[in-house]
Amino acid sequence: MSFNTFGKLFRFTTWGESHGPAIGCIVDGCPPNIGLSEKDIQIDMDRRRPGKSKFTSQRKESDKVEILSGVFNGKTTGTPISLIIYNEDAKSRDYETIKNKFRPGHADYTYLKKYGIRDYKGGGRQSARETAARVAAGAIAKIVLNKIVGKQFDIIGGVIQLGLLGCNKEKWNKKEIRKNQFFCPDKKSIKLWEKYLLAVRKAGSSCGAIIELRANGIPAGLGAPIYSKLDSDLASALMSINAVKSVSIGAGMNAALLSGEENADEIRNTSGVTKFKSNNAGGILGGISSGQEIVVSFSVKPTSSIVNSRMTIDKKGRNTKISVKGRHDPCVGIRAVPVGEAMMACVLLDHYLLNRAQCG
Amino acid sequence: MSFNTFGKLFRFTTWGESHGPAIGCIVDGCPPNIGLSEKDIQIDMDRRRPGKSKFTSQRKESDKVEILSGVFNGKTTGTPISLIIYNEDAKSRDYETIKNKFRPGHADYTYLKKYGIRDYKGGGRQSARETAARVAAGAIAKIVLNKIVGKQFDIIGGVIQLGLLGCNKEKWNKKEIRKNQFFCPDKKSIKLWEKYLLAVRKAGSSCGAIIELRANGIPAGLGAPIYSKLDSDLASALMSINAVKSVSIGAGMNAALLSGEENADEIRNTSGVTKFKSNNAGGILGGISSGQEIVVSFSVKPTSSIVNSRMTIDKKGRNTKISVKGRHDPCVGIRAVPVGEAMMACVLLDHYLLNRAQCG
Amino acid sequence: MSFNTFGKLFRFTTWGESHGPAIGCIVDGCPPNIGLSEKDIQIDMDRRRPGKSKFTSQRKESDKVEILSGVFNGKTTGTPISLIIYNEDAKSRDYETIKNKFRPGHADYTYLKKYGIRDYKGGGRQSARETAARVAAGAIAKIVLNKIVGKQFDIIGGVIQLGLLGCNKEKWNKKEIRKNQFFCPDKKSIKLWEKYLLAVRKAGSSCGAIIELRANGIPAGLGAPIYSKLDSDLASALMSINAVKSVSIGAGMNAALLSGEENADEIRNTSGVTKFKSNNAGGILGGISSGQEIVVSFSVKPTSSIVNSRMTIDKKGRNTKISVKGRHDPCVGIRAVPVGEAMMACVLLDHYLLNRAQCG
Amino acid sequence: MSFNTFGKLFRFTTWGESHGPAIGCIVDGCPPNIGLSEKDIQIDMDRRRPGKSKFTSQRKESDKVEILSGVFNGKTTGTPISLIIYNEDAKSRDYETIKNKFRPGHADYTYLKKYGIRDYKGGGRQSARETAARVAAGAIAKIVLNKIVGKQFDIIGGVIQLGLLGCNKEKWNKKEIRKNQFFCPDKKSIKLWEKYLLAVRKAGSSCGAIIELRANGIPAGLGAPIYSKLDSDLASALMSINAVKSVSIGAGMNAALLSGEENADEIRNTSGVTKFKSNNAGGILGGISSGQEIVVSFSVKPTSSIVNSRMTIDKKGRNTKISVKGRHDPCVGIRAVPVGEAMMACVLLDHYLLNRAQCG
Repeated sequence: MSFNTFGKLFRFTTWGESHGPAIGCIVDGCPPNIGLSEKDIQIDMDRRRPGKSKFTSQRKESDKVEILSGVFNGKTTGTPISLIIYNEDAKSRDYETIKNKFRPGHADYTYLKKYGIRDYKGGGRQSARETAARVAAGAIAKIVLNKIVGKQFDIIGGVIQLGLLGCNKEKWNKKEIRKNQFFCPDKKSIKLWEKYLLAVRKAGSSCGAIIELRANGIPAGLGAPIYSKLDSDLASALMSINAVKSVSIGAGMNAALLSGEENADEIRNTSGVTKFKSNNAGGILGGISSGQEIVVSFSVKPTSSIVNSRMTIDKKGRNTKISVKGRHDPCVGIRAVPVGEAMMACVLLDHYLLNRAQCG
Repeated sequence: MSFNTFGKLFRFTTWGESHGPAIGCIVDGCPPNIGLSEKDIQIDMDRRRPGKSKFTSQRKESDKVEILSGVFNGKTTGTPISLIIYNEDAKSRDYETIKNKFRPGHADYTYLKKYGIRDYKGGGRQSARETAARVAAGAIAKIVLNKIVGKQFDIIGGVIQLGLLGCNKEKWNKKEIRKNQFFCPDKKSIKLWEKYLLAVRKAGSSCGAIIELRANGIPAGLGAPIYSKLDSDLASALMSINAVKSVSIGAGMNAALLSGEENADEIRNTSGVTKFKSNNAGGILGGISSGQEIVVSFSVKPTSSIVNSRMTIDKKGRNTKISVKGRHDPCVGIRAVPVGEAMMACVLLDHYLLNRAQCG
Repeated sequence: MSFNTFGKLFRFTTWGESHGPAIGCIVDGCPPNIGLSEKDIQIDMDRRRPGKSKFTSQRKESDKVEILSGVFNGKTTGTPISLIIYNEDAKSRDYETIKNKFRPGHADYTYLKKYGIRDYKGGGRQSARETAARVAAGAIAKIVLNKIVGKQFDIIGGVIQLGLLGCNKEKWNKKEIRKNQFFCPDKKSIKLWEKYLLAVRKAGSSCGAIIELRANGIPAGLGAPIYSKLDSDLASALMSINAVKSVSIGAGMNAALLSGEENADEIRNTSGVTKFKSNNAGGILGGISSGQEIVVSFSVKPTSSIVNSRMTIDKKGRNTKISVKGRHDPCVGIRAVPVGEAMMACVLLDHYLLNRAQCG
Repeated sequence: MSFNTFGKLFRFTTWGESHGPAIGCIVDGCPPNIGLSEKDIQIDMDRRRPGKSKFTSQRKESDKVEILSGVFNGKTTGTPISLIIYNEDAKSRDYETIKNKFRPGHADYTYLKKYGIRDYKGGGRQSARETAARVAAGAIAKIVLNKIVGKQFDIIGGVIQLGLLGCNKEKWNKKEIRKNQFFCPDKKSIKLWEKYLLAVRKAGSSCGAIIELRANGIPAGLGAPIYSKLDSDLASALMSINAVKSVSIGAGMNAALLSGEENADEIRNTSGVTKFKSNNAGGILGGISSGQEIVVSFSVKPTSSIVNSRMTIDKKGRNTKISVKGRHDPCVGIRAVPVGEAMMACVLLDHYLLNRAQCG
């Protein structure tokens, strides 16, 4: 509804540029009386922040969140929660050499076309640094969901494809995801992925990724026809993340290849409990949660900032070349995992509140 | 923000059930002084309506649109345009035998879980019949875009995958799409597709499809960071269509498999005109149109209503079987083409107006 | 956010022109499983419709509402409720003589300036006939409130000032309001008001009115800081009614004349129940309901369509005169009573749902 | 649409508590390439801030605004503008004695009823300190309007009634308003007002006020039927300001007392220019600006925090008394003037952008 606001009842509005003094967000519509501290939010912040491994940007940001409002004596008051994260390691000089050129794959060209002005330092507003604010908002959403939906609620995301390398999804292991630097769900793939990504980086190149998100403990009935379907809102949420080029629900693109019998998940009553025999639907039927695990995936294109030289034009329209030498992730898809989780948590909480409003 | 409303400035709100007296929509926010008649809208309605070929539902609906407001002396007045389409051939008796069972792959179960009540006749509100109203709204959006963006504006969609069968996208031919009953862009695939789909139907089964949409003539600068990105809104729009399970922008899922050099589209000045050397971005960078062709695709799952018997439960939770014998499309993906075009047109017009508001 | 949509969670969108084929609205976001029939809605429609007494327009409209969707087996399904009211007695020839002139006090001039086109028949979209659709939406809101808030919920509106004549508000009597054609709360004023209004009409003139609305049975806690305050939303709702020029909450304009001691309502615990010693706040503190009676009033300007000749200009900018001879209410304020009640009911239900969402 | 967000296209979201570390807002949807500095905003901030005269709160706040994002090289970039104002002189100990009592006329009771928790320090979120953020947003709106509507655009507000004392509105003098500490448009009233307000304060009491806002240079055509009428949005904007109890457009409440002939403003063509012979409409017809001066007024109740003892209850429901001894304005209505101007500016800019979107 807004350009920098996401959500309907649980809403957050983000602000800030990559090389400005700070970034942040306002979380509005949060239920009151929920225990919340900066430490709670920091856990997810630390999962996203750069500089932690050799496979992410070497920009050193502590990404420490400060709560400026909306919490009183350790509890949410139901009023807007303002969060701020100071930028500590912005090296704007890195950008001086390219300020008059359009980086291919970036929004340099389209921002200038639209606004007639652009903040070229670190990409300004188009930088993926904005996603730190989303992770903060998502951390709050997770805490609220755990309080009002219950302890069984859980979201976890994993990288299931790193460039040309897949992994065995059947071996999905939450604990493993939390341990390795790739958020890879299958331990066996990690060594190979390491070698591969080092080679990619050494080649001055980059690679993409596919991330899968799984939410458990979500009751049936969340979502709504027709234009706030749960899957429609998840698609919007994930497609809004930098570099995302596709979103799939359940069987996703593959659903087109299945027959009607293969695709439609059969239903059984097993000892009084409704169970589906498969989950091609990804836990969503007609835009409404079915009580199954909600499964969504999205693809992230390879980092556009690469050392290898590319053809482009400058502001005056002259043909030229560009080589981007900043401190960039060889695969931005890795750090997109906590961002995807955050967006999913916000959508689910929003629909929980919307459903409580209409259906009691 | 709304459950049955789509859009920010150019908005439409749909209503109606598959077997109720009528369906319809209100289009709000339309620019004034645009020539508009029922005949103009009917062209797109006829492209979607059932009963036209052996490969779509045999339900006989003329889908005749009536304009009830918002047009004066053949021109839009800027006030809400109310459109109504009467249901003519609803055969509710078809549904009596299954009214107490949940059809797998449909929203029967989730609607009842959410609302505690459901209109089982023809699926009520969950029926894809609702999409007729979207096509009507989209027809208006196309007319407005042609008037204010210019004659060069054009949207066309085609089926690029029918179940297990693909086609040669390189042969994309607009005229061909308009001629054949599959909206297939490549003439050579049609005969094979016919045989395949007849076999699928004869087998009491169904199949899915992948649709690609292409928009030309859209200027650079439409869209907006961060949560109303053009691609984010397109994803939301297309994912809200019945049976859609994935949405891709440009290279989409494949972007994950490309290297940074392959993916980021290089830019050249060719005789004073900015050109991109490829279009993996699908015409959108940082959520803003680049002036290139906008390319989006989406996958549709196979029709869930099939003759072949499936396991399910009834309202009382008892295990049972179901075989759905109504008049169903063996591949709902085919008729999703004009629906996809309509949604894309609405998103593009909305962003055209939003951009005019902020950037003049 | 929308031009023809009102509300956040309980929303209605109206459409239609005074002299078009029909008017109507879509009510979206209604809770499911609420008993609803056309008859239920008709009760309020009949309170607003013209042609009932010598003091209202002689246009003969039965204002019969038809439900086109959203109700199944006599109950709401949670999907959009489409309502249609056919126009039966539009006499467009009445307007031929004035179609090129701007009626003072009407929106003829501003519509043409804004849209470059206007439907001059009966005022088109600017006609107060649009309010019939609001009354239909409000009737549904009242029914839902009675079901979910409880039987103690009640809204009643009365005319407390008719042109230059006031009445004794202390004698407020609900039963009396329901009986007389002025919605006057004090029986003693009626005779005088009759004579006065007859004289106004005979003189080819018109007069204004002040309406007071009172809602009882609303629990404490509805509303929200800062920009969806209950009073802020009520002000917006009532000011959107044709011809309304002011809105007051509780003591309203007079609050400016009170001292701090007089104004702030003292609080007492009386046998375990919180009571306020006065109600200058009108039942709203800081934008949130206090559990007291909610009291709002609004003023309606005199009907602008009068027989007496007025100076104006025509479409070509030439000075001219105008005398409006259609069938007009000598005081539109009277029929604004059920409209005001309807808008208040919609705001209260909306805030009930919003509060349930955030605070459970 | 949001609880702490105001506006449709030009939107601001405020956050912060009276005694927290800071307050602030995010302004989203601002047109790009508008010159903007902290100094520009500070001018309006200084007009609102406390501690400047003996008639306002003695809380010492410099109310210095810092821009954290959205401005690059002195120009807006079209991305969110984050503003922060640090709280410098919060004396929370002032509130310890009353933290368990509900102050009459304040939202203490309703906040606790709604949220089950309340920040009692300085009133937390219910404090009028929030309005500083509105003034900052409004300052930006004014700057944008001056740039895109033109230099002739101007908004000025004045206090026309101070408690029981009126002033001669016919003497409306912009320069005078800018000079005196009451924002009084008539020089002759000032001495008397001073004496009166000193007496009110000495008596441990407080008084209300009526403020009139006048906007010039606004073109015809802004606003929209039906639920985003310009007057409806102004009513919502002004009623959302703390302590406001009524809003009037043009003749306002008095319109009810006029005859049809007196009220409807006649139209004349004077040397090729359309002129109205009066302005009872307040410059708005049918929710759309007519090109006349836009005139709106609103009433502010007397400050609820007074020294004089009042009856109330405490958190445990026990009857008690209260005397509020903080540093309070004897008439909060005075400092409401720049707040009202700010809200009006935001509404006008929003409608300017909305009109540009739909009507080009």
